[in-house]
Amino acid sequence: MDQLTLLNDRIISRVNVNLNEFDFDTEPFVNNTLDYEKMLKFYAFYGITSQHPIYFQFRHSNLAGSYFLGKCLVSRSAIYKSDIRGDELKRMGDNIRCAKNIPLVEDEMITIKDSLLYKTLVHSNSHNLENPEEFSIRNTISAHYTNIHGSTLEGCFLGPFATIDLMNLHSCIVGEFSYVQVGEPFHRKIDPGTIWIRNPNFEFKYQFEKSILDNFVGVNSFHQPRGSIYDFVKEREQDYENLFDVMNIEPIVSAPTSAVNRYAVVKGKTSIGENVLVSQRAFLENAIMGDGSNAQENTYIINSVLGGLNITAHGGKIIHARMGRETFVGFNSFLNGKPDAVIEIGQGCIVMPHTIIDPRVSIKIPDKHLVWGFISSEEDMAANTISLDDLAEVRDSLRIGSMTFSGKGSIFIEVFKKRINNILLSNGARFYKGEKRGHAQDGQNISFNIIQPYQTGKHMGLYPSIRIEP
Amino acid sequence: MDQLTLLNDRIISRVNVNLNEFDFDTEPFVNNTLDYEKMLKFYAFYGITSQHPIYFQFRHSNLAGSYFLGKCLVSRSAIYKSDIRGDELKRMGDNIRCAKNIPLVEDEMITIKDSLLYKTLVHSNSHNLENPEEFSIRNTISAHYTNIHGSTLEGCFLGPFATIDLMNLHSCIVGEFSYVQVGEPFHRKIDPGTIWIRNPNFEFKYQFEKSILDNFVGVNSFHQPRGSIYDFVKEREQDYENLFDVMNIEPIVSAPTSAVNRYAVVKGKTSIGENVLVSQRAFLENAIMGDGSNAQENTYIINSVLGGLNITAHGGKIIHARMGRETFVGFNSFLNGKPDAVIEIGQGCIVMPHTIIDPRVSIKIPDKHLVWGFISSEEDMAANTISLDDLAEVRDSLRIGSMTFSGKGSIFIEVFKKRINNILLSNGARFYKGEKRGHAQDGQNISFNIIQPYQTGKHMGLYPSIRIEP
Repeated sequence: MDQLTLLNDRIISRVNVNLNEFDFDTEPFVNNTLDYEKMLKFYAFYGITSQHPIYFQFRHSNLAGSYFLGKCLVSRSAIYKSDIRGDELKRMGDNIRCAKNIPLVEDEMITIKDSLLYKTLVHSNSHNLENPEEFSIRNTISAHYTNIHGSTLEGCFLGPFATIDLMNLHSCIVGEFSYVQVGEPFHRKIDPGTIWIRNPNFEFKYQFEKSILDNFVGVNSFHQPRGSIYDFVKEREQDYENLFDVMNIEPIVSAPTSAVNRYAVVKGKTSIGENVLVSQRAFLENAIMGDGSNAQENTYIINSVLGGLNITAHGGKIIHARMGRETFVGFNSFLNGKPDAVIEIGQGCIVMPHTIIDPRVSIKIPDKHLVWGFISSEEDMAANTISLDDLAEVRDSLRIGSMTFSGKGSIFIEVFKKRINNILLSNGARFYKGEKRGHAQDGQNISFNIIQPYQTGKHMGLYPSIRIEP
Repeated sequence: MDQLTLLNDRIISRVNVNLNEFDFDTEPFVNNTLDYEKMLKFYAFYGITSQHPIYFQFRHSNLAGSYFLGKCLVSRSAIYKSDIRGDELKRMGDNIRCAKNIPLVEDEMITIKDSLLYKTLVHSNSHNLENPEEFSIRNTISAHYTNIHGSTLEGCFLGPFATIDLMNLHSCIVGEFSYVQVGEPFHRKIDPGTIWIRNPNFEFKYQFEKSILDNFVGVNSFHQPRGSIYDFVKEREQDYENLFDVMNIEPIVSAPTSAVNRYAVVKGKTSIGENVLVSQRAFLENAIMGDGSNAQENTYIINSVLGGLNITAHGGKIIHARMGRETFVGFNSFLNGKPDAVIEIGQGCIVMPHTIIDPRVSIKIPDKHLVWGFISSEEDMAANTISLDDLAEVRDSLRIGSMTFSGKGSIFIEVFKKRINNILLSNGARFYKGEKRGHAQDGQNISFNIIQPYQTGKHMGLYPSIRIEP
């Protein structure tokens, strides 16, 4: 285990250097998270498909239980039960959006060095214009169920259930259950439960009350997660482990235009429509997936109906709910309906990332509404929703409950709708007669190669150096 | 499938060039053997252990269902359900046995190019002194259950159940169920059922009668195997496939000094003693494996007792038999006892490779005997066995039944015993208090990495280029 211990220690010291000013020590997190026995036992896997350029290089790393797709280099890192999904990486010749169009000189690659990613999702492509060929994560630790979406990182610590979206972070700490999309923070500390989008055109901000958030997601003194959302996912862990035990799994019956990843859990009376994408580590139980809907990594759709063209972004959880057509549910949202407290959300709604709906009685959100924050009853709706029509009228600023907005509401809606449409397109939700292919079509017929570490000797716990090319 | 078809065609044309003089066309064999659907479906795997230097490189190849251990390069080849076992390769610094000792300048590597190996075992290390760092197989086709043992090949066709042992073959055809160990044959055709050992000190030869051999192993006009030995192995294929469906198999309980490969079938009341090696694709059913015994690749030990320090060489089959201590069973031997026709073989016997014992009533072979050829009754024993003491007396030549021997019997026995002892040593059969480790000890704690081919696109059926280093 010498090499694994060395790896461990190097990651701690690297990240600590960056976070020195915050007096933040990553050692308690790392030492209480990494379980060497599981790092020896769990296999990693990478996908081979003819639809994406492939290149994998793994060296001096442990990759226990992780999934890799696309082009990826991992060096001196521990990637534990994480999904490194490179099927949206930019390709050679693609133009980056800059004052002047600059074509990429080679395919973009995810590179992860001297980092620990724990049950983390890495997806999309780097929105860092300075280095468009490299989606880079260095000297960084991310905790349980973090989403690293289109963001480059150097020297950061991301708390459990945090999401960083389309950013470039340097020496930052992002608190648990925070969602941030705020450009290029440099030596910043983001409080837990901060939902914050800022760009030249508008700013959206919501802050969870600590007393409420603590019930759902909190951390102990070792930065380990606790709370009911963590309990919810932990209770379902065994279902995933079963998937890993079987080599050739009976494929889930779905339309020929849909893809259900073999590492997704599908239980109960679940039906899959056309153009549906169910990603690895999605969890469906008694779920009706309408045409063009999707369930991304770490999503849970239980006893619920998705009307069609629904996006359930990474980590979204939809329980005892009926979702109208073209309704979007953002990252890590927790729609915790119950048999006697059903959540009904109308058509064309936008549920902001990291929204928590935990109703005591059934609630209904009308069509075309923006939803955010925390809703436990009908009364909370006024302070946590607005109709998109009303929002479009906002010219300057708006404050509702703990939410503040500044900028033009119409631009905010436009940007969001454009993004939703792009997600639907890239997921293949609008595939028709061979046109508009996306992940739902390309995610079929993936071969998975399985890799494991040395079980004994000086490299014990590390994976051999592996290089895969087309 | 374009690339796979191309691969197919290239192998046919390459081998045909070498075998042109024999008017031998490999096309019917290849086209009737390769099943593209299975080549897409079956996964290959390679072993990672701290006990052997590892290096794997695979390119432009299909590896369906094959197993790799040690250092190996495969290029432009189809390796179907084969075992390429490089745990006895020579290492850098080892001296090759020549007039003058020459140390190897690098670790030996198995290299397989432009070849089709079908359910073949490749094992040991090259005994070709000219190129000691490369255990090379080029432009070669080997058929079902062939053993390539310590032999280099260029431009050859090996029929089903053939064994080539410690040789260097160039442009040869070896008939089905032939065992040859005859130095460096060049443009030779070996008839089916030829058992032939020749070296500067002695020569042993036995020829199966065609009418008898045909019942056990024959080939049809496409060189595909038939006969009762083939039926026997075919009937048990499903048991292996079950092993491939499960990822983490419950380890077979055995002594801490023994290794039971997770790709071995173990059924019924089987017990595993100390220092026992059970290799991948061995099949044990109601087998008592005495201390220091082994079951190598493609062996079957059913309703039988091995007294201890028994070697069952690759492909040996022992059914309803009781084997005395230190008794050796050679490659592909078929000891086909029945409940009412038990085979008992005494201590210290040598059952020559490719021996068939198919008794109608119980038979008993005394201690310290050499056994060869075909035995179906007590009467056959006189023509197919000799006591080692009597053989040791032979100074010049001997003919018994269809067997001819020339040379000194004592040297023949000495060479054989030395080899048996080396096999026991390398298998760890004599491990004691940390000394004399071998495969039975080193074969524990292997990690298996699983690799699969492209399922679609122009590379469909081919594996990506993969390189693994420590």
